[in-house]
Amino acid sequence: MIVLDGKKTAQDLKEEIKITVSEIRKDGQRSPHLAAILVGNDGASLTYVGSKVRSCKYVGFNSTLIHLDESTSEEILLKKIIELNHDDELDGYIVQLPLPNHINEEKILLAIDPKKDVDGFHPSNFGRMALEMDAFIPATPFGIMELLERYQIETTGKHCVVIGRSHIVGRPISILMSQKGQAGNATVTVAHSRTQDLVSLTKNADIIVMALGIPEYLRADMIKKGVTVIDVGITRVADENHPKGYIIKGDVAYDEVAAKAAAITPVPGGVGPMTIAMLLKNTLIAFQRKN
Amino acid sequence: MIVLDGKKTAQDLKEEIKITVSEIRKDGQRSPHLAAILVGNDGASLTYVGSKVRSCKYVGFNSTLIHLDESTSEEILLKKIIELNHDDELDGYIVQLPLPNHINEEKILLAIDPKKDVDGFHPSNFGRMALEMDAFIPATPFGIMELLERYQIETTGKHCVVIGRSHIVGRPISILMSQKGQAGNATVTVAHSRTQDLVSLTKNADIIVMALGIPEYLRADMIKKGVTVIDVGITRVADENHPKGYIIKGDVAYDEVAAKAAAITPVPGGVGPMTIAMLLKNTLIAFQRKN
Repeated sequence: MIVLDGKKTAQDLKEEIKITVSEIRKDGQRSPHLAAILVGNDGASLTYVGSKVRSCKYVGFNSTLIHLDESTSEEILLKKIIELNHDDELDGYIVQLPLPNHINEEKILLAIDPKKDVDGFHPSNFGRMALEMDAFIPATPFGIMELLERYQIETTGKHCVVIGRSHIVGRPISILMSQKGQAGNATVTVAHSRTQDLVSLTKNADIIVMALGIPEYLRADMIKKGVTVIDVGITRVADENHPKGYIIKGDVAYDEVAAKAAAITPVPGGVGPMTIAMLLKNTLIAFQRKN
Repeated sequence: MIVLDGKKTAQDLKEEIKITVSEIRKDGQRSPHLAAILVGNDGASLTYVGSKVRSCKYVGFNSTLIHLDESTSEEILLKKIIELNHDDELDGYIVQLPLPNHINEEKILLAIDPKKDVDGFHPSNFGRMALEMDAFIPATPFGIMELLERYQIETTGKHCVVIGRSHIVGRPISILMSQKGQAGNATVTVAHSRTQDLVSLTKNADIIVMALGIPEYLRADMIKKGVTVIDVGITRVADENHPKGYIIKGDVAYDEVAAKAAAITPVPGGVGPMTIAMLLKNTLIAFQRKN
C-alpha cells in the first residue's frame, strides 16, 4: 500500500518553484507576485491567508495581503479589484472566501481579471479548463492531478467514482480525470446526495475521490481490494483530548480503508498541503504567461 | 414504449416562440434578430445555415446571413465579428463550423461576445453553465434536456451513461444531467474511447446518451429492459436505393433497442430537429436579457 504523501509532494513542488524563482531573479526580473484580499476576521480564513503569505515568502514570491474591514462595502471591494486588475506588478490574486453576507460573491468573482484569477474560480477559466484550453485550474483538483501524476497512478480506462459535485472540487476533478492526458482518460462517474445505491458504485470503482464533507463516510466494506482513494474531506470534529479542542477528519475511515487500498491520501497531509502549492504554481504560470 | 418525438417537440417550441414574438411585436418592439456567418461553400454547412434562416423566418425573427468567400482572411472575419458584437440591432449570432483551415477556430470563438454567443461555444458560457449561472447552453445538450423535461422522464437518482466526451455534446450533457434541477440530479458516468468494459456500464444504465458517431453501435444485448435511450448520432451511410445516395443512421440499432427500451429518440426526427429550435430559444433569451 502506497501513502500518497501530499505534505512531501507539496514540499518538493515548493522547492522546484523556489529554484525557478531564483533563476528568474538571476535573469534580472522581478519575482512573481501574489496578492490576497481578506475581508473581515474569520478565524479559518485568517489561518489560510497567513499560510499562503508564508508560502509565498518561502519560495521567494512577492506577496501582498490586503486586509479589509468586515464592514467594507461591495463598491469599495470592487474598486480594489479593478485596481489589482490594472496593477502590472501583480501576476495573480485571490479573494479569500467566504465574504461577508452583504457582499455578492458571484459579482466579485466575475470582476476578477481571468488572467489573474489564480484560484481558477472565474467561469471563463472553468470553461477554458473544460474545453481543454490553457486555464487556471482550481488548486484542489489541480493538486489531486499532480499527486496522481507524481505517484504514477494509472488512470487510463480505470473507473473513477467522484463523490460530490461541488464547483471547486467534485465537478472540476471529474472533468479533468475524464479528459485526455496523464492522470486522465478515466471513465468517471459523479455521485452526489441524490445518488441511489452508492455502495454498488464504490465497490466497482478503481479510484474513489471523496469530496463529500462527512467524516469517515467511506468504510472498508464499501470498496474493493486494490482501489486508489483520494480523500478531500477536512471536517473539524470536537475532541477534548486535543489541545485545540478538535481534530481534523477526512471523508474516509482511514485505517480500515488503507488496509484494503493500493494507494490512499492521508488526512491531514494528503490533498490539503497540495492546495497551497498549486496556488503558488498557478501564480508562477500567470507570471510566465505575462513575461 | 414512448418515442421521444423531437420533430413534434421542436415544432411545439417554434409555435411557442412564434407567439412570444408576435407579443413582442404588438408591444411595439423590433423582432429578435439572429445572424449566421458562413465562410465558404461546404455542402452540409449551406444546408444547416439555410435551415436556420428558414426557421427564423417561420417564428418571425429577423435574420441575416453573412456569406463570406472561402478565401476570407482571419483578419477580415475578426473585423466582421467585432462589427456584430457592436451591432445593437443584433441579439445573437453563430459562426458556422467548420471554418477553412487557414482560420484559427479557437481565436474566432473567443472573439464572439459571450452575450451574443447563442451557440454557447465560448468558454465563458461553458463555465457559467458548469457553475450554474445564467448561460447560453449549446443547442444539442439543451435540446436533450428540453426533450427529457417535456416527456417528464425521471432522471433524479437514475444512472445515466453518456458515451462520448465531446465539447459540444458529451461533456455538457453530462454536467447538465448531474446538476440540480428538472432532468438533472442523475448519477452520470462519462464513457469514451478509452473506457474498459463498456457493456457492463450500459447494461446497468437507466438512461443512455449515445454521442459516439458510430452507426448502430448500441445493440439490444448491451442494455437492460426499460432504459431510456437518447441517440445523438447522425452518420451518413451510403445507400444506393436512396435518391440522395445515402441514409442517416444514429448510434443506436433502433428496432432491436426500441423493443427493449421504455423511451427512445428516433434518428432522424429525435435530437436533430431540437437543435435548431434551441438555437431560436437561445436567441429569444438573448433578446429578453437585453430588453
